[in-house]
Amino acid sequence: GGSGERLGGATPKQFCAVHGRPLVSYAVRAMERISWISDIIVVVSPENIETMKTIVEKYGHKRVTVVKGGITRHRSIFNGLKVFAESEISKYLLQKPEVVVIHDAVRPFVEEDILLEVVMAAKEHGAAGAIRPLVSTVIASSADGCLDHSLERARYRASEMPQAFLFDVIYQAYQQCTDYDLDYGTECLHLALKYSNIKAKLIEGTADLWKVTYKRDLYAAESIIKDNLSQQVCVITDVKEDAVQVGFLLHESLKSQIKVEVISISLCKNDNYLHNMLSGGCYNFIYIHDKQSALQETELLVDILEKSNTTLSYPIMLISVHLNSSENISFSIGMEELTTIKKFAREVKMKNIWSYGLLIHYK
Amino acid sequence: GGSGERLGGATPKQFCAVHGRPLVSYAVRAMERISWISDIIVVVSPENIETMKTIVEKYGHKRVTVVKGGITRHRSIFNGLKVFAESEISKYLLQKPEVVVIHDAVRPFVEEDILLEVVMAAKEHGAAGAIRPLVSTVIASSADGCLDHSLERARYRASEMPQAFLFDVIYQAYQQCTDYDLDYGTECLHLALKYSNIKAKLIEGTADLWKVTYKRDLYAAESIIKDNLSQQVCVITDVKEDAVQVGFLLHESLKSQIKVEVISISLCKNDNYLHNMLSGGCYNFIYIHDKQSALQETELLVDILEKSNTTLSYPIMLISVHLNSSENISFSIGMEELTTIKKFAREVKMKNIWSYGLLIHYK
Repeated sequence: GGSGERLGGATPKQFCAVHGRPLVSYAVRAMERISWISDIIVVVSPENIETMKTIVEKYGHKRVTVVKGGITRHRSIFNGLKVFAESEISKYLLQKPEVVVIHDAVRPFVEEDILLEVVMAAKEHGAAGAIRPLVSTVIASSADGCLDHSLERARYRASEMPQAFLFDVIYQAYQQCTDYDLDYGTECLHLALKYSNIKAKLIEGTADLWKVTYKRDLYAAESIIKDNLSQQVCVITDVKEDAVQVGFLLHESLKSQIKVEVISISLCKNDNYLHNMLSGGCYNFIYIHDKQSALQETELLVDILEKSNTTLSYPIMLISVHLNSSENISFSIGMEELTTIKKFAREVKMKNIWSYGLLIHYK
Repeated sequence: GGSGERLGGATPKQFCAVHGRPLVSYAVRAMERISWISDIIVVVSPENIETMKTIVEKYGHKRVTVVKGGITRHRSIFNGLKVFAESEISKYLLQKPEVVVIHDAVRPFVEEDILLEVVMAAKEHGAAGAIRPLVSTVIASSADGCLDHSLERARYRASEMPQAFLFDVIYQAYQQCTDYDLDYGTECLHLALKYSNIKAKLIEGTADLWKVTYKRDLYAAESIIKDNLSQQVCVITDVKEDAVQVGFLLHESLKSQIKVEVISISLCKNDNYLHNMLSGGCYNFIYIHDKQSALQETELLVDILEKSNTTLSYPIMLISVHLNSSENISFSIGMEELTTIKKFAREVKMKNIWSYGLLIHYK
């Protein structure tokens, strides 16, 4: 959660759109794809409960419970934990987990390995949290706004998320802590130390654990996601010689910039094969063919892509290249085909598939 | 300076390209446009001296002296300061300033107001530096990699740049400090406190003082600059009724998204007027006309834009819209005009002016 004041806008930062999709949805997806996470509790301020529920539905999130937050960070986290322990909070009590992970809605790029590391360390030590080197020197100021002392940068770390705790350790800490802690504290690891006497294990995390705080961070998130979507392309060709040749040349010219895989049209009709490509991070497809009417096959492709549910999260690009070497093609037939492509593109755009058509007439 | 390890690439981050131009050039430009800054010393590692000199020449930077850095941050800054005090460092001794500003090459968005504030505070207190609230909680770890204690976030600040010092205060501090300070220290304000007994004044800075540390920061810098370049557009129309009408409609449809100014072609021929627009942050021009051959006037525009030297720093966009209502225009004449526009666009592209032509035939 958090109020998003620092972004200077009315929209809390976790609801800001990144490529049209709210930031919190990326963070939820990052958790959701991990099979050993049994429940995801999203704590949001009372006025955003409905917005969050709409997001869960729209993007097909599973295992999510939306919980009403408090007026401070610690009060919100405490509310989230109560879902597992106090039946009056939730309509149904979720099964109390051995370990609970605490994460921010505004850290969309968390990977499974750091989550696993933090969870395993929490199992062993009772609490664990990701840390990063300090980017700037930290200083303390005196009452008159002058330098009192500066901290030796190498001896300190920035405390980041995810953090993990044995459920009882953190829940008991929250039950015992004072109103002052709940109102002014910011660090869960500190509560575990103070009230449960648990020294959290600190895990060095990677640079992708940063959180979106300022507008520039939204820009960065947008660029990183765009980058991730442009890492791979799959070229689909049918067996005719010309198409294979174009596919080969395309491969040659693209492979220095992007990971290219060339597959046959028959292979791509195998649902599993395409789904594996999608879950492996390939969101771009170029279909090269020489059929007069390849629309049916393109529609088949779209169906398979859509079924994967990837389109709920990310746009998929599909370029259909029609090689035409027939002698007597008329202008009007070409125009007709273009119109069909445009109509088709408009339809599939609504499914988050960006379809482009290219007609190449040659002799 | 700095080694850029955290970006994970071979190129030090200050030389990474942002819209094709090295980051350090943006930081130098930010300093250079401030009239009361008499000299700019850029300290770079020995192997990058030539690269830096090439950048200074290519982007037309003035008042810049390139100085060889040391193996640590403090040693590099000390080298930079020696240019004003020790004649063997520089071929010619620069005049010793009353106040010196210390800034990072990787903080491109520094504004004059914070520089002035820091400099005035340094004049009064002997030293001053910009600070920002902490983004994450800072913690200290024990020897076994566990949490020792966490700092109360509200009591501490991140020390940022720019910082400013009375020259003698910081120079004497560097002359007295130990090798340990020079090798492991990171904070100039600390040296001023320890060796010159000066308590630096801390100035709350704005969010744009951040430094480029990670690849995501380069993405953010790129987006912020792009945003800045797309804030304003100038529509230039000649006196004919149709052109004025198109200009008016364009204004109406654009003004909700971007600041639009509409001026006449005669006004835009006034060098000063266009130069003022450029220095006011307008980098986009749409020239609407109905002349059969408006190329000469477009060329005149390009000349004026080029003379401003803005194109050394930023791309300028120029869209020439030709409204043609003559009855008997032949296809080949249209094609000829398009060819001329394309040739012209290729030429001015080399001057960092992106020219587009639009022909509109109507009745």
